[in-house]
Amino acid sequence: MTYTQMSREELLAEKAELEAKYDIYKSKGLKLDMSRGKPGAEQLDISRPMLDVLTSESDLTTDEGVDCRNYGVLDGIPAVKKMFADILEVDPSEVFVGGNSSLNLMFDVISCFMTKGIAGCEPWIKQEGIKFLCPVPGYDRHFGITEYYGIEMINVPMDENGPDMDMVEKLVSEDEKIKGIWCVPKYANPSGITYSDEVVRRFAALKPAAKDFRIMWDNAYVIHDAAPVGDKLLSLMDECKKNGTQDMVMMFTSTSKITFPGAGVSAFACSEANMKVLKARYNFQTIGFDKINQLRHLRYLKDSKGLIEYMQKHRAVIEPKFDVVLNALESSVKATGAATWQKPKGGYFISVDVTEGTAKEVVQLCKEAGVVLTGAGATYPYKKDPKDSNIRIAPTYPSVDELAQAIEIFCVCTKLAAVKKLLG
Amino acid sequence: MTYTQMSREELLAEKAELEAKYDIYKSKGLKLDMSRGKPGAEQLDISRPMLDVLTSESDLTTDEGVDCRNYGVLDGIPAVKKMFADILEVDPSEVFVGGNSSLNLMFDVISCFMTKGIAGCEPWIKQEGIKFLCPVPGYDRHFGITEYYGIEMINVPMDENGPDMDMVEKLVSEDEKIKGIWCVPKYANPSGITYSDEVVRRFAALKPAAKDFRIMWDNAYVIHDAAPVGDKLLSLMDECKKNGTQDMVMMFTSTSKITFPGAGVSAFACSEANMKVLKARYNFQTIGFDKINQLRHLRYLKDSKGLIEYMQKHRAVIEPKFDVVLNALESSVKATGAATWQKPKGGYFISVDVTEGTAKEVVQLCKEAGVVLTGAGATYPYKKDPKDSNIRIAPTYPSVDELAQAIEIFCVCTKLAAVKKLLG
Repeated sequence: MTYTQMSREELLAEKAELEAKYDIYKSKGLKLDMSRGKPGAEQLDISRPMLDVLTSESDLTTDEGVDCRNYGVLDGIPAVKKMFADILEVDPSEVFVGGNSSLNLMFDVISCFMTKGIAGCEPWIKQEGIKFLCPVPGYDRHFGITEYYGIEMINVPMDENGPDMDMVEKLVSEDEKIKGIWCVPKYANPSGITYSDEVVRRFAALKPAAKDFRIMWDNAYVIHDAAPVGDKLLSLMDECKKNGTQDMVMMFTSTSKITFPGAGVSAFACSEANMKVLKARYNFQTIGFDKINQLRHLRYLKDSKGLIEYMQKHRAVIEPKFDVVLNALESSVKATGAATWQKPKGGYFISVDVTEGTAKEVVQLCKEAGVVLTGAGATYPYKKDPKDSNIRIAPTYPSVDELAQAIEIFCVCTKLAAVKKLLG
Repeated sequence: MTYTQMSREELLAEKAELEAKYDIYKSKGLKLDMSRGKPGAEQLDISRPMLDVLTSESDLTTDEGVDCRNYGVLDGIPAVKKMFADILEVDPSEVFVGGNSSLNLMFDVISCFMTKGIAGCEPWIKQEGIKFLCPVPGYDRHFGITEYYGIEMINVPMDENGPDMDMVEKLVSEDEKIKGIWCVPKYANPSGITYSDEVVRRFAALKPAAKDFRIMWDNAYVIHDAAPVGDKLLSLMDECKKNGTQDMVMMFTSTSKITFPGAGVSAFACSEANMKVLKARYNFQTIGFDKINQLRHLRYLKDSKGLIEYMQKHRAVIEPKFDVVLNALESSVKATGAATWQKPKGGYFISVDVTEGTAKEVVQLCKEAGVVLTGAGATYPYKKDPKDSNIRIAPTYPSVDELAQAIEIFCVCTKLAAVKKLLG
């Protein structure tokens, strides 16, 4: 019986039972954290051997004879470009290798379009009232970049196949002020779903009113499975090339959640025309990114095959954590109807839609019982979840034991908030 | 006897002699390069042991307990901030540690001022016709950033004490469109001089018409002596604090020419008010820079004392190279009056002013004899040296033997071009 089917008496009894449980948790003085999309210590240890790959005895030159210690090579070591190209399913010439942060590359790209424009159009900063589409729930740091630059953000609902493409197609074809859309196409942050083939094809077939419309395709979890058989994402670049729309796409990824979050290697991929504009910027921005760290990654991971095999080590750590959360939600919450969620096969998050109007309450209840969650609303532009319903759970950072305890408390708080809401 | 004192017959005889020498060099098919301000292989080898400092067995946490492998810590590891603060003579709270490139930090700062403004003023991009002062000769990559953003550049002559401060004071106090000035205050690129105490004090006492005027103080060679007793630069931040003008200063440095040019650590320093604006940007730009590389540098170099001692190893390699160039110029060119130059006690360059109107000719003659030099004009905004006189010599990258041969050829070309010019 779901909560909505219960009588007032039944709800009051449920409330009393939940409050009793909640008070016990609260009295324990716990300190648990499901807020951060960070690898846990066990995952960080996986990549310790990478620190032994380069020593004072190492040959520090690339196959092409470039000394990685010195200046030069703006767009990355060729073999590293190839590795990222294979993962992103593009040509190596379409890849630019950056520093330790793909977020920084995205910021650079938006900054470039803001100040110099793209596709021969006026710089975005000189075009008044420009807008971005933001599939929701989404990644707060994407929304942060567009908010920093004063770009108006428009929510686009997501379902299990990706963004609402009817809405996307209509908006971008009608409004030339819409300059882009933020996407995490595989294991979306936070819903965990992967865009369907149809959604990818519809993205590739978009006919935007704005010639300078760009899809910001953040493939952060491109090979980050948390299940024996992961999702398969259709190649957007391939589909775009069939339609001649490849200038519409900017792709990003990194090894932040493969090797070290603070010391990985990032990359973007794009068409020749976009690359020309971006290299014209980077040519003034820097002499080149850290090639020694690129070489360290290359010698350690070898190539894209090596990368994909390596991810099995992470899966071994992450999969049980996803299971703990999903099993608890299934056994404790599902029957009550107090929340809904997807079952991601990878990525870093589980996105829970609690009873409308209770997300802030659930986060607050958890906090008081010692469980830190990402703030309610964080997954929406301007931190405003219109339904006050979405909560992002990040299961990777705590240990399995901590996680088991934290999710138990989360379930109780979710149910308690739902019951209180129904009782009015 | 200088060339200008010679008779036509004497000049013709000198020309014949120089041409004979030149033809011999030319026939040798040499390949020599004095164009690049890059450390040579011997210098790169100095820092090889840094690659052994962190291994799979290392403790990767800071004194504060931060795991350097993971996300977090936007402005750098505290002990690294302290190291840079000591070198730049500022407070650690005034330091922000970046990635591998101080040029990138400068680009970020100018980008920030362009798009968001500083000191509560309108973004520079919205203020029409803004200008930058450029002491000349100067660093082409500085001029590149301001050119990329369409900022008009005004040449300011340099002498052995620094920029012409009468001109700087007059211009900045009268013209509110002047928003900044590029400076390499110690071992200036390329003249090698260090700003005098008086020049530093006059910088600190500037009264710009523009509230958002900023001194871009690129202290790239802050501890890079090439002589037993190096120059001493007065602390601009200290002087500014005496005048309450500390918001006017943005300081930069890096370990690019201390450890590895491609894989060092950079930093900037500024007042609390400027830091607030810049952190507001970086907070959206990245989650943080590479802390493992920061930790590697810290464990290897220890602190600012360690850094300064370490630079003696570089001096041992660089000093003989500077001597080779300076001795050749002294013995071969000085008496002819065909060129003038400073004698730097550090840095990476020797700047030679050849006979007016012959710099391009000298570079071309050298090229044809197998010696690559930085392009004539490269040390001026828009690559336009109005006197066609300045040539930047970079002695660090070639070996001493290569350098000895290259500078010999340079001297002959310099004299030959001067003689031809006088003969008309």
